[in-house]
Amino acid sequence: MSSPAQLRSVRKRQEIIDAAQSVFLDKGFAGASVDEVAALASTSKRTVYGLFRDKKGLFTAVITEAIDAAEHRSHDSVEALATSQDLATDLRAFARRHIVDVIQPHLMRLRRLIIGEAERFPDLASVWQAEGPGRGHATLARVFTALAERGLLRAADPELAAQHFNWLILSIPLNQAMFRTDDDHHSPADLEYYADEGIRVFLAAYGSDRPQR
Amino acid sequence: MSSPAQLRSVRKRQEIIDAAQSVFLDKGFAGASVDEVAALASTSKRTVYGLFRDKKGLFTAVITEAIDAAEHRSHDSVEALATSQDLATDLRAFARRHIVDVIQPHLMRLRRLIIGEAERFPDLASVWQAEGPGRGHATLARVFTALAERGLLRAADPELAAQHFNWLILSIPLNQAMFRTDDDHHSPADLEYYADEGIRVFLAAYGSDRPQR
Repeated sequence: MSSPAQLRSVRKRQEIIDAAQSVFLDKGFAGASVDEVAALASTSKRTVYGLFRDKKGLFTAVITEAIDAAEHRSHDSVEALATSQDLATDLRAFARRHIVDVIQPHLMRLRRLIIGEAERFPDLASVWQAEGPGRGHATLARVFTALAERGLLRAADPELAAQHFNWLILSIPLNQAMFRTDDDHHSPADLEYYADEGIRVFLAAYGSDRPQR
Repeated sequence: MSSPAQLRSVRKRQEIIDAAQSVFLDKGFAGASVDEVAALASTSKRTVYGLFRDKKGLFTAVITEAIDAAEHRSHDSVEALATSQDLATDLRAFARRHIVDVIQPHLMRLRRLIIGEAERFPDLASVWQAEGPGRGHATLARVFTALAERGLLRAADPELAAQHFNWLILSIPLNQAMFRTDDDHHSPADLEYYADEGIRVFLAAYGSDRPQR
């Protein structure tokens, strides 16, 4: 059980991360200052440094938090794919949810910011790559290995299959979002079409005709 | 026939574009100055403004020039696909060349820079999107329509097929290049594997079993 002091501390930490995300998205990494973040979170610089050590630690927490929140939404449904009894339907449902989870405006803004700063701050880009696509591909590769063992997929290279799956679903809206900053250029119907067609292509290449056990 | 004065002018224009690319990649769009570009190209600011109007016109020329040069390398081979007599082999050969043409370090640096600046300078991002992937997808969609008419592909939505094709080949190395700034993290063997496997997946979904006419 958490004490009131612990709860206050968790809440304060979250307020600082929210403030930091807002300041970083407005000013970029180099342009943002810990002063500004502390002011926006109504706390002291000393508290911020105490919790996150430095500006890089703060941005790392922003990345981790944003990706964790998005992954949390799809975690159960991706793990459930391994034991699916109707793989095509379940993959389509997962794809439709996954595309919406990833193409959230604040995640696209963070992604643009981190790519733009990758030369100056390669550590931040590594954190994003590892926490985001890296972890996502590893989870999918595990799931696809289990499905191949059940005879439901043919995936000689599960890591490659995971990347093909992910990019077949995400590439079109994700790459457009990198170059278009208005958030509403994809209708929900567009996103469903990309998800469904991505799954169609994936299953044509990786699907198995063997009956389910 | 070009006069010596015309040739000098073409050469000067190219020198300014080369200098501008170097300055933009070093300083970013906001940080770069026309003064610096003029100095590096050993010319006057007045000449730069005369040829390119303003800093945005200059960066637009850098984008257009970089993409044109990359497209020029693959132009004939992509058009030739429409009349291919051995589609799987020719698609694989094109894919292997395409991946190398796109993943050039200076193109990846420009892409990162433009994505990072997309919020502040949406016009530049639009130019990149239109001249690069936009034009590339339109060309591929035309080629796939011709191949579908010959009975060699099934592509109810040729624009979607073009995007699937492109991203199946490019997504893995391209997205890694967005977050990793060392240029040599893909061996030529990796790139060939991505090209070949991308074509395998594409043909499983879009290939036709009908014999060639």
